[in-house]
Amino acid sequence: MCNALESTSAFGPATSTILTPHNPLSSQDISQYNDYFHASCYLALGMIYLKDNPLLREPLQPHHLKQRLLGHFGSAPGQIFTYMHFNRVIKKYDLDAYFVSGPGHGAPAVLSQSFLEGVYSEVYPEKSQDVDGLRVFFKKFSFPGGIGSHTTPETPGSIHEGGELGYSISHAFGSVFDNPNLIALTVVGDGEAETGPLATSWHSNKFLNPVTDGAVLPVLHLNGYKINNPTILARIPNDELEKLFLGYGWQPYFVQGDELSSMHQAMARTMDRCVDEIRAIQAASRTTDSPSRPRWPMIILRSPKGWTAPRKIGDDYFAGFWRSHQVPITDPATNPSHLAILESWMRSYEPERLFGKQGKPLASITALCPEGDRRMSRNSITNGGLLLKPLKLPVFKEYQIQVDRPGATINASMHNFGRYLRDVIGANPHNFRLFGPDETESNNLGAVYEVTNKVWMGQILEEDSNGGHLAREGRVMEMLSEHTCEGWLEGYILSGRHGLLNCYEAFIHLVDSMVNQHCKWLEKSLEVDWRVKIASLNILLTAVVWRQDHNGFTHQDPGFLDLIANKSPDVVRIYLPPDGNCLLSVMDHCLRSKNYVNVIVSDKKEHLQYLDMNSAIVHCTKGIGIWPQFSTDSGQRPDLVMACCGDVSTQESLAATQYLLDEYPRLKIRFINCVDVFRLLHPSDHSHGMTDSEWVNLFTNNTPIIFNFHGYPALVHRLSYKRPGSEHLHVHGYREKGNIDTPLLLAIRNETDRFSLALQALDLIPGLGSTCAHVRQSFLHRRISACQEAFETGIDPPELTNWKWTWEQTMEDN
Amino acid sequence: MCNALESTSAFGPATSTILTPHNPLSSQDISQYNDYFHASCYLALGMIYLKDNPLLREPLQPHHLKQRLLGHFGSAPGQIFTYMHFNRVIKKYDLDAYFVSGPGHGAPAVLSQSFLEGVYSEVYPEKSQDVDGLRVFFKKFSFPGGIGSHTTPETPGSIHEGGELGYSISHAFGSVFDNPNLIALTVVGDGEAETGPLATSWHSNKFLNPVTDGAVLPVLHLNGYKINNPTILARIPNDELEKLFLGYGWQPYFVQGDELSSMHQAMARTMDRCVDEIRAIQAASRTTDSPSRPRWPMIILRSPKGWTAPRKIGDDYFAGFWRSHQVPITDPATNPSHLAILESWMRSYEPERLFGKQGKPLASITALCPEGDRRMSRNSITNGGLLLKPLKLPVFKEYQIQVDRPGATINASMHNFGRYLRDVIGANPHNFRLFGPDETESNNLGAVYEVTNKVWMGQILEEDSNGGHLAREGRVMEMLSEHTCEGWLEGYILSGRHGLLNCYEAFIHLVDSMVNQHCKWLEKSLEVDWRVKIASLNILLTAVVWRQDHNGFTHQDPGFLDLIANKSPDVVRIYLPPDGNCLLSVMDHCLRSKNYVNVIVSDKKEHLQYLDMNSAIVHCTKGIGIWPQFSTDSGQRPDLVMACCGDVSTQESLAATQYLLDEYPRLKIRFINCVDVFRLLHPSDHSHGMTDSEWVNLFTNNTPIIFNFHGYPALVHRLSYKRPGSEHLHVHGYREKGNIDTPLLLAIRNETDRFSLALQALDLIPGLGSTCAHVRQSFLHRRISACQEAFETGIDPPELTNWKWTWEQTMEDN
Repeated sequence: MCNALESTSAFGPATSTILTPHNPLSSQDISQYNDYFHASCYLALGMIYLKDNPLLREPLQPHHLKQRLLGHFGSAPGQIFTYMHFNRVIKKYDLDAYFVSGPGHGAPAVLSQSFLEGVYSEVYPEKSQDVDGLRVFFKKFSFPGGIGSHTTPETPGSIHEGGELGYSISHAFGSVFDNPNLIALTVVGDGEAETGPLATSWHSNKFLNPVTDGAVLPVLHLNGYKINNPTILARIPNDELEKLFLGYGWQPYFVQGDELSSMHQAMARTMDRCVDEIRAIQAASRTTDSPSRPRWPMIILRSPKGWTAPRKIGDDYFAGFWRSHQVPITDPATNPSHLAILESWMRSYEPERLFGKQGKPLASITALCPEGDRRMSRNSITNGGLLLKPLKLPVFKEYQIQVDRPGATINASMHNFGRYLRDVIGANPHNFRLFGPDETESNNLGAVYEVTNKVWMGQILEEDSNGGHLAREGRVMEMLSEHTCEGWLEGYILSGRHGLLNCYEAFIHLVDSMVNQHCKWLEKSLEVDWRVKIASLNILLTAVVWRQDHNGFTHQDPGFLDLIANKSPDVVRIYLPPDGNCLLSVMDHCLRSKNYVNVIVSDKKEHLQYLDMNSAIVHCTKGIGIWPQFSTDSGQRPDLVMACCGDVSTQESLAATQYLLDEYPRLKIRFINCVDVFRLLHPSDHSHGMTDSEWVNLFTNNTPIIFNFHGYPALVHRLSYKRPGSEHLHVHGYREKGNIDTPLLLAIRNETDRFSLALQALDLIPGLGSTCAHVRQSFLHRRISACQEAFETGIDPPELTNWKWTWEQTMEDN
Repeated sequence: MCNALESTSAFGPATSTILTPHNPLSSQDISQYNDYFHASCYLALGMIYLKDNPLLREPLQPHHLKQRLLGHFGSAPGQIFTYMHFNRVIKKYDLDAYFVSGPGHGAPAVLSQSFLEGVYSEVYPEKSQDVDGLRVFFKKFSFPGGIGSHTTPETPGSIHEGGELGYSISHAFGSVFDNPNLIALTVVGDGEAETGPLATSWHSNKFLNPVTDGAVLPVLHLNGYKINNPTILARIPNDELEKLFLGYGWQPYFVQGDELSSMHQAMARTMDRCVDEIRAIQAASRTTDSPSRPRWPMIILRSPKGWTAPRKIGDDYFAGFWRSHQVPITDPATNPSHLAILESWMRSYEPERLFGKQGKPLASITALCPEGDRRMSRNSITNGGLLLKPLKLPVFKEYQIQVDRPGATINASMHNFGRYLRDVIGANPHNFRLFGPDETESNNLGAVYEVTNKVWMGQILEEDSNGGHLAREGRVMEMLSEHTCEGWLEGYILSGRHGLLNCYEAFIHLVDSMVNQHCKWLEKSLEVDWRVKIASLNILLTAVVWRQDHNGFTHQDPGFLDLIANKSPDVVRIYLPPDGNCLLSVMDHCLRSKNYVNVIVSDKKEHLQYLDMNSAIVHCTKGIGIWPQFSTDSGQRPDLVMACCGDVSTQESLAATQYLLDEYPRLKIRFINCVDVFRLLHPSDHSHGMTDSEWVNLFTNNTPIIFNFHGYPALVHRLSYKRPGSEHLHVHGYREKGNIDTPLLLAIRNETDRFSLALQALDLIPGLGSTCAHVRQSFLHRRISACQEAFETGIDPPELTNWKWTWEQTMEDN
């Protein structure tokens, strides 16, 4: 069986062999397509080289060249070729489509297309379709303050920058979920295809419902080389390549060669075939409404790297080789013979003819572009904020946890939040999805399955009805790839919808780099006036460090917060709600917010509850505050500030407070809880920051502060740097100490447990009197006893696990 | 064509159909194998449940059960089945082999095998092969201070913990490189197989030389389910699955079913076939010495999750379903009927018969294990330090860069280091490899190709001779997957060799999580007395943030250092050599060191050179120090401390110093450079740390300090927290501000440029007199002019780019 429309002969300079006799294009079409292709390649090359003489109306001189040559030509011709041929089917079928450029530094391809479509000039009038506009357009590319060499947020039609490789397929899938008429034409670089995130994202086809979702048409662009190496996929036989993609569940079609006329015919034929198949799959499944997992089409395009560049310069290969990856000829300013080669190459595209007298592309060229919003670089899906509809959110107060006595009841905050999340999903059946790497149930969010299911286009067995919650349609997306889940979510919100990723805390580091890049996208988007804000990227970290005691050291890392704290304060938020009502309040806020990366850390197990709903709202709105119900300073100068951030940390701080008060009932302790980590910064460093005077009002400038933090202590150190009285600040947190433990053992190992906190208080508070040594002995003894019991029985002493705040009662009782 | 030895019928409870009539096992063999399998499953179950009554000599009572039930049973039977059948071929062919357990929480499988081999009792005598030993062995599993539920460093035979999923294949490949007789039997979990790092690591077969390297035999274990979901690969037809792995370049063989006798025959037959093929491939290529890329065999094992557990309990599925993933029956202590089911299940393995009177496994069982060092859990490859040979290092001083006048010459530090690296490779042809994601040449380390090549088992074309450096054998490993490169390197050093990963600085975040896990492995290994230290994991970050100005915001992130700073101080080191001689000194040190993760940040372009070789050695040994050649304080109390860390940062600080001295020749400036970031910590926080008095000797406690740092400024803030005089410390660094820039524009945007530093000095130094306003205007003007010129010309003013230190000369001249 041979699935290729084209032959599988070894790739080389030969014309592609045509197996199917049908040639959709007339010779006049071919001529027009060649003009379009040459005009596009010329634009790509002009961007790299020229600051003046944009149409070569004068002989090319060194002073026409930019002094610093930057940009990448290698993948541009193949991407242009793909884009222009898809334009043909957009017009033929009136398709709603946009373009994802996966290869690194793909901007010259995309920019040239947007320019020919006229969109670039509409958005940036100074880059007009004339000689002056071309001059600016060329000069500003990869130029200080100018146009990026990736498809940055400034690029019309882009939701995928491609600065870091590997996410084109997952972004594309995210964008077509719940967009049944959309096609994401996605060029995957063959270098990009070697990355892990891309390699697994091909399996996204097992999660695409042909009834309710659109389609992704991947074009794997085998141009053979990366920076200095061949690519793996370009150097395996077509037979192996075909099997690989059949194995991934796709139907690959090959288009390969370098002779333009036959390549145009082959690509046109293949595009027709792919779109016909996509439409047939959709029509069949939408008519019968019983979707099976289809074999979606894809294209494998083998075209030379730097296609149309000179094959050799001197003894060195260029076109079809890695030397054409970036700037193909690097020294035209100083090497006259290379300047001549460059000029001759550029003139081979006939710029003077193709751009006419005014410098405007010929009408026969622009006629090949779709019109209006059908132009891919104008598709509003790529400015997702335009399409954003607010979520219909249930009244979160109605999901409140009853808290009659603060700190005296235990409840499952995450399970309770699951009820709210269930109703968010119920109220927004096409506008919200929940993503997670196989952990939604384990994270105690299983209530969502009362109203929805997990999307699963693979085989469904009878046994799945036994609690599997698998269905062709659903709002929950689970695949054991944090990369794919994160990529789907990014694609989903970038195209104007809402979502939430839930993940084990330690393993969110897997997507450090992806989240980094999304932060950078958001930050840059703020500077692009036509970009409309999108929904925030919400990341809920459960299965937190402090309850991964039993899973050991590998499951313990709260460092994602440090990563987030390095990003621009304009786009990042971190919340650590201490209990269930705070979690509801925080999540409601996050789901309404725009353009942020919100990181919410909340454990999935049962925990003490501190605040009733109204208090929780007030507290979360302030972000940090004194909890008078657990304080004994009555607004006076305290002996000790006991501060905490994070649910488990709050419990330990509170227990320490009570232990101290049990011994020293007259001690003036001020209890402070922090929900919003960036409150600790100065207002000059973050809009949530507090002034020094606010700081002193809370923490004083001369009182010992014991701050029990959920994450690495250094994060609090850096956020509170240079605060008045910060020399009195003592931060506890995860100190990279772990083993197979119980919760309390893990805390003790890191000195975040109640006993260690209370012991430090004894050191810090002056004048505790003669009983202090005795009290110290008692705390030490209780800490050791707790360890001993845990080591013997395997569990923490129940009276510590079930500890509750009773001080007020005691006060009242006395 | 059907490549499967076994049928491809849909997986279910039926016996596997046997296509090949050959049955290698006698009925007596089968009986012995069943005993072995049952004994192993019993051990796995005992670890999860029992703290007492280890062989069920009494009726099972709740008090025999651990109070907290932890551990994972699901994947254990399949892994045990694989392990035990490989033992057969080890004995048959006298193989040198070890086992990599990819599925999460795979320890019960591995521990049970090590126990039956007798190795566990040899290493941990209290876990002896008798009733008392079994009791301890069972109780300590997933118990505080006990045995981890992953194959942690405490586990004999493990180099792969599997706490985070996705690295089994890349680790296995790393270990067999340059070990021509070794086979790494590698079970890949079907959940693990969904991760990105794993999905691309199958392509490692394009980098394995059958002449000089060993073999990896992957067993993809399709047990159907993850925590709460089916796995993708278990729910696609065998035909698709077969194509996928043929496409990946492997030859898959299927073994599937759940009926033990036929499964034993099938697995034995398939193992024979795989080992025969491996040996045939190796023999053929080693005889002819012209290796082609072979199609290595692999096994796809479809066996039920929780194989041999009850299929149903009440209405709920267990065996063959996700409910058997972790602890299959969770409430035996409180549910008498479940206790009875558990007891009956455990007794079905016949512990009383299989472990005899003493609690020692029957001789007929242990007879199936290999002997001595052929036992996989005893293979010294898994305690790589045992095999570690020191590198033969050239005398690094001989590669020195001539520095006659400090700060007055420019040279390419990285290119120069490439010469040294070339000779490291030349001197260690089987003991050192260089890894990188397609960037070694771009990172200016191309000199290594004078003595070696890049390994490439794919097609090699004639054009590759034009600078491609591809060969079947070589020391450089390049694949555009940071995950795979990092995994290979980890596997390579864990098995007792040396290596270096070179990577763009921003994209090292892709492997944050992997490096995290390796740090945790190293840290835990320090607590395991029989583990011998291995070579350090050396990561060279080039293409640094400050020279990625033109590539834009996505290529700028120095935050990997923050990640490293969160890890245990016992295992991490960070060096930022300011120039070429320091780079040589640092790299020599790192290549000699053991058990660290060394992160070295050094740019690949040309830079100012500051220190001659001897001064560089002294400076790097101190890690931080005053540079008198650029200081004017002559040991007196300075007016200003100008400190810096990082090559680009040092240049800007030095220029600022000179600008200030040009204006104020009598200013007493102390110039400090930091190479070793952890010198900034207290000795209590890091063994490299300095005391407060050392700190004051350097920085004083009352002088303004302008610290120009390579990374995010917060890292210096947190490291210098609570230092005397730290209120006078002003840190500059990357503030997450980027665009398409020139180097100087990027620095100015982040205020790390010479002008911004000098301007801040004017603010901080008191008593500069009446000319200060004028000088400020001049600096401001020069900063603006530089920006203007860059925006107009696209390059920085050459006089700034080529700036050199001339102050001493000026001093002398005057």
